[in-house]
Amino acid sequence: MTPVTHDLVHATQNAFGTGSLAAQIPFGLYVFKRLLSVGVKSIFGVPGDYNLRLLEHMYDDSLRDSNGGTLEWVGCCNELNAAYAADGYSRYTNGIGSVITTFGVGELGAISGLAGACSEDVKVLHIVGIVDYEISNQNPEMRLRNVHHLVPRLNDSNFVGPDYRIYSEMVRDKIACSAEYLDDLSTACDKVDKVIEDIYKYSKPGYIFVPCTFVDQLVSSRNLVERPTITLQDSVTKTSPDEARKLTNKILDLLYRSSTPAIVGDVFCDRYGLTKELNDFINRTGIVSFSSVMGKSVVDESSPLYMGLYSGKGHVGSVIEKFLSCDLVLHFGIEKNEINYGNYSYTYKPDAKVVELHPAYVRFYDHLSKEEEIYRNVNFVDILRLLGEKIEVPRLSLHYDSKFTPYNPDDLKLDEIDFGNDETSDITQVYLQKHLPGSLNPGDVLISDTGSFQFSIRDFKLPSQVKYIAQSIYLSIGMALPAALGVAKGMKDYPNLHILDYGKIEPGYQPRLILLEGDGAAQMTAQELSTIVRHQLPMEIFLWNNNGYTIERVIEGPTRAYNDIAPWKWTKLLEVFGDFDGKLSRSSTLETRSQLLKKLSELKSRYSKNRKGIDFMEVRLATMDVPSQLSGLVKDLMKR
Amino acid sequence: MTPVTHDLVHATQNAFGTGSLAAQIPFGLYVFKRLLSVGVKSIFGVPGDYNLRLLEHMYDDSLRDSNGGTLEWVGCCNELNAAYAADGYSRYTNGIGSVITTFGVGELGAISGLAGACSEDVKVLHIVGIVDYEISNQNPEMRLRNVHHLVPRLNDSNFVGPDYRIYSEMVRDKIACSAEYLDDLSTACDKVDKVIEDIYKYSKPGYIFVPCTFVDQLVSSRNLVERPTITLQDSVTKTSPDEARKLTNKILDLLYRSSTPAIVGDVFCDRYGLTKELNDFINRTGIVSFSSVMGKSVVDESSPLYMGLYSGKGHVGSVIEKFLSCDLVLHFGIEKNEINYGNYSYTYKPDAKVVELHPAYVRFYDHLSKEEEIYRNVNFVDILRLLGEKIEVPRLSLHYDSKFTPYNPDDLKLDEIDFGNDETSDITQVYLQKHLPGSLNPGDVLISDTGSFQFSIRDFKLPSQVKYIAQSIYLSIGMALPAALGVAKGMKDYPNLHILDYGKIEPGYQPRLILLEGDGAAQMTAQELSTIVRHQLPMEIFLWNNNGYTIERVIEGPTRAYNDIAPWKWTKLLEVFGDFDGKLSRSSTLETRSQLLKKLSELKSRYSKNRKGIDFMEVRLATMDVPSQLSGLVKDLMKR
Repeated sequence: MTPVTHDLVHATQNAFGTGSLAAQIPFGLYVFKRLLSVGVKSIFGVPGDYNLRLLEHMYDDSLRDSNGGTLEWVGCCNELNAAYAADGYSRYTNGIGSVITTFGVGELGAISGLAGACSEDVKVLHIVGIVDYEISNQNPEMRLRNVHHLVPRLNDSNFVGPDYRIYSEMVRDKIACSAEYLDDLSTACDKVDKVIEDIYKYSKPGYIFVPCTFVDQLVSSRNLVERPTITLQDSVTKTSPDEARKLTNKILDLLYRSSTPAIVGDVFCDRYGLTKELNDFINRTGIVSFSSVMGKSVVDESSPLYMGLYSGKGHVGSVIEKFLSCDLVLHFGIEKNEINYGNYSYTYKPDAKVVELHPAYVRFYDHLSKEEEIYRNVNFVDILRLLGEKIEVPRLSLHYDSKFTPYNPDDLKLDEIDFGNDETSDITQVYLQKHLPGSLNPGDVLISDTGSFQFSIRDFKLPSQVKYIAQSIYLSIGMALPAALGVAKGMKDYPNLHILDYGKIEPGYQPRLILLEGDGAAQMTAQELSTIVRHQLPMEIFLWNNNGYTIERVIEGPTRAYNDIAPWKWTKLLEVFGDFDGKLSRSSTLETRSQLLKKLSELKSRYSKNRKGIDFMEVRLATMDVPSQLSGLVKDLMKR
Repeated sequence: MTPVTHDLVHATQNAFGTGSLAAQIPFGLYVFKRLLSVGVKSIFGVPGDYNLRLLEHMYDDSLRDSNGGTLEWVGCCNELNAAYAADGYSRYTNGIGSVITTFGVGELGAISGLAGACSEDVKVLHIVGIVDYEISNQNPEMRLRNVHHLVPRLNDSNFVGPDYRIYSEMVRDKIACSAEYLDDLSTACDKVDKVIEDIYKYSKPGYIFVPCTFVDQLVSSRNLVERPTITLQDSVTKTSPDEARKLTNKILDLLYRSSTPAIVGDVFCDRYGLTKELNDFINRTGIVSFSSVMGKSVVDESSPLYMGLYSGKGHVGSVIEKFLSCDLVLHFGIEKNEINYGNYSYTYKPDAKVVELHPAYVRFYDHLSKEEEIYRNVNFVDILRLLGEKIEVPRLSLHYDSKFTPYNPDDLKLDEIDFGNDETSDITQVYLQKHLPGSLNPGDVLISDTGSFQFSIRDFKLPSQVKYIAQSIYLSIGMALPAALGVAKGMKDYPNLHILDYGKIEPGYQPRLILLEGDGAAQMTAQELSTIVRHQLPMEIFLWNNNGYTIERVIEGPTRAYNDIAPWKWTKLLEVFGDFDGKLSRSSTLETRSQLLKKLSELKSRYSKNRKGIDFMEVRLATMDVPSQLSGLVKDLMKR
């Protein structure tokens, strides 16, 4: 490796005419400096020959802060897992989650993780190290070469050179809000910045394709000097002040005339960093709140104003009843899809007025008159802030009747459908649903994989500031396990970032990370447990062992072999994956209710201040045992 | 599940006016009958809600043969692994390897496996179960719905319906030779047949996107009656008889005038089922043969006519010397790329004449005059067959001088670079290269993952009819492990299919399957070992434990953390993955040369007739130990 010169600091003139210090630095270093500047402390990925020279720049001393802190590489077992981990990192930190892969073999392995991030509005940056024959000034004959990792042309590949951009065209305008194939070093830094800004702006993934020969070439660090960081706040679409005022007044008018308004906290509130603002607004105004499936845990469920999760037909009659009594619904951060909209069964009080607030529009809809007004190019970020400033609480005239009681999971009547009768009974998903929420402490982070149990979590009443993370619409099984790696790394890099009100957290409490994982899902991505062990990331893992794809069995083929999976010795998994002498983890099997309760209580109280190691609980469940929320949904889907 | 009626047999008129028996059968059943008709006995995949109804048709009694044999579903841990397994199944059987996944989450997980099959000319059929809102005659408002697994539009997704074909557009004309998105039941059967025909024709992967509501609807089985099977032979491009005769004569003229002709057996000979024809031609004519990297094991290396593997610069001086002495090179099944063409260093004797024979063209090139003639729309399949028919062996005048000795791996001079000196010495890759080939028996199947050791296999002298399987140009690490599942299943479905000359195989010998796997590669896809255990597929697995990505360390960052992987307790892996009581497998660690030799000899002789269980050998290798073939290549790449 030839040492690169990047200490050549010289004064330069920035675009705005003010003088500032900029240096010539290798482009690879620029990339990492920029990532560090936006708060990225961990990068997930897999090395490959087209990204190795890029990775080398991660070790540059200038990336070290005064405490020796720097970017950490988190090597994953495979690229799909790395993408999921980056997704988890972003969901926890609400910043950029980064994944680095190599041309073709790596990037395509990760592609489903990126599609998931796109569907779920997660800020993932995918950096792909690519071959440079097309770009660099080499022998033009090189461009005819079919290089390794690059799929050749379907026809005439012995005569015609490959399409170097074939993979980038698979994602551009499809699953990435921004995708820059760097082919000109002089604009490369601007493009990196642009992709990061776009990721914040749209809360969707972005791609940067980096030719392996660019990374050692020198570029100006001017952008870093002129714009020391790129923030979410700077990047999002701005609403014109006039328009913001006008819309805010319009909403306030509706609010002042409403007696039973409701606030729905949906996914974009989380993604645009508005969780605190929204809860403050709810608390100050006394307006009741509902959550959505994708926005679960945005509104504080421990508040007496929390009425439950509404998603159309839903599951809890009392929640539906309350929602359908609201004459005004302010739906903050709305995302409309099959899951969030309850298979498009989302309805309102027949004469309700609805305001949909979204990063790109505000829509007013009057259910009685069927009149709608849509305002484009306005961002709910500005509107929510202005609402908070402008609202005159005394002008509200809220009149919620007696049915508007705080959400109470007792309304699920789980006792009536729970057939176990003593502590040696089998654990059921209904029993779990009754007891798991109580084992959570305020501030814990709960992540669930796609699967049958996930459907019951909607109706959990979460303690204050429990952050809940799950795929809601992409629903790719296996995602949560590597995502938990990313979340755990985020919690290490930024402890307590999700705690917005320390008054509600036990002083000094170190939040737990709890992963709920199906057995079929776990087999998809299980090897990433070894990365969790390797980095000694504390975590509690509940592995629902129900002998296969129970969620599919409910839909079709309950006893078919295609819904079976291979039996694994789950409690030995962490030993094989790196905890050779059992010092880093504790694995157990839970078969009875008493074993479960004992473990839940132990986990709730143990290690509250210095949590270490991994707790892995294999929970044995009956093959066809599912929460009633899922049976209801499937019945509904079958009707179509 | 409503029983479907498909016993309604009636006479129908086929397209050619002849009467034949056809039935109305559900489309899902049609798909599986067609697969069975082309020789598919095992299907790999993962269930998902959009493919479950399709999978149900796999259990139809009419798919059972008189022995009760039928299609077997091989459920894989994840979709990438399933695609790799299908790839392995196709490589072994030279038929269609099938993988079934679900919309989005499944198909995108598999996409890198399909790109690999495309790069390596492998016949993989990917069937994706998709949502049908766009197609079926439902409420048009349904088309606006953002359904689960489907990435919504990047903009305006709350107003505009999704692009249901977004995933199919990612692969069409990029990594699939044929991709049919079924949107009309009346043409669906024809399109299934067309994709299968195209896969054979181009030896590339194809896609069928199957709406989940199509599978229970009735279609005519006419195609199955009129065309009971679709064969490779029927599907490939035909050369016009005149053209074939003309080109054959032209080649024969060259051959009769040559004194030192050579035959190169390249990858398409395998893919188009010409291995036997080619070897017969070599043996009848006495023309010397060379193999290529991608075509390794096509020409019989036990023949005295085998001169070695040539790929340009290559590694063995004596092989290069022989190749560069040939005045005529007939390169059968040629594929030009960086690996097969030795980083485009492929050269010839300065006055050599070269004939490139390819499925889509034949090219004549005279190196002295630089004159070339290219004939398009001709297929080397026809040419090779006609050459075999027309050649008059006595008219050949071969005069190979004394340097044309059969390939001898001693020319590698491995002893000179092997520093171990007694049986307690560490095992090195050079030592392996010396002793592993001798442990193979004629007819064994050898599969290697991408990694450092792979580069030494090129220079193995394989026993007769050992089939060698590896990715050569896509080079995605982790591919070989699930591919071995597919190969093993293929060997069970079609025992000894690769044996073309039983005279050279010990009577009754059951060929072994030997998987060579790096530790970094294994961690990518390790969970699929549990499927191998579950199906009790006999296999020998050598796990090269060299503490990480040694192949990357050679290129960059020999001691960097990014090239490290988590340490695993490899010998416990099969226990965790299903062999709970150790009855299905034997795991061991090999650290010394004597341990290795003992194991190699045991494996060579043991279980020759009734091979059972899995032998898993963790072979400890030094972190930076590589075969000299790799060091040479990297040195060469670095020069660019």
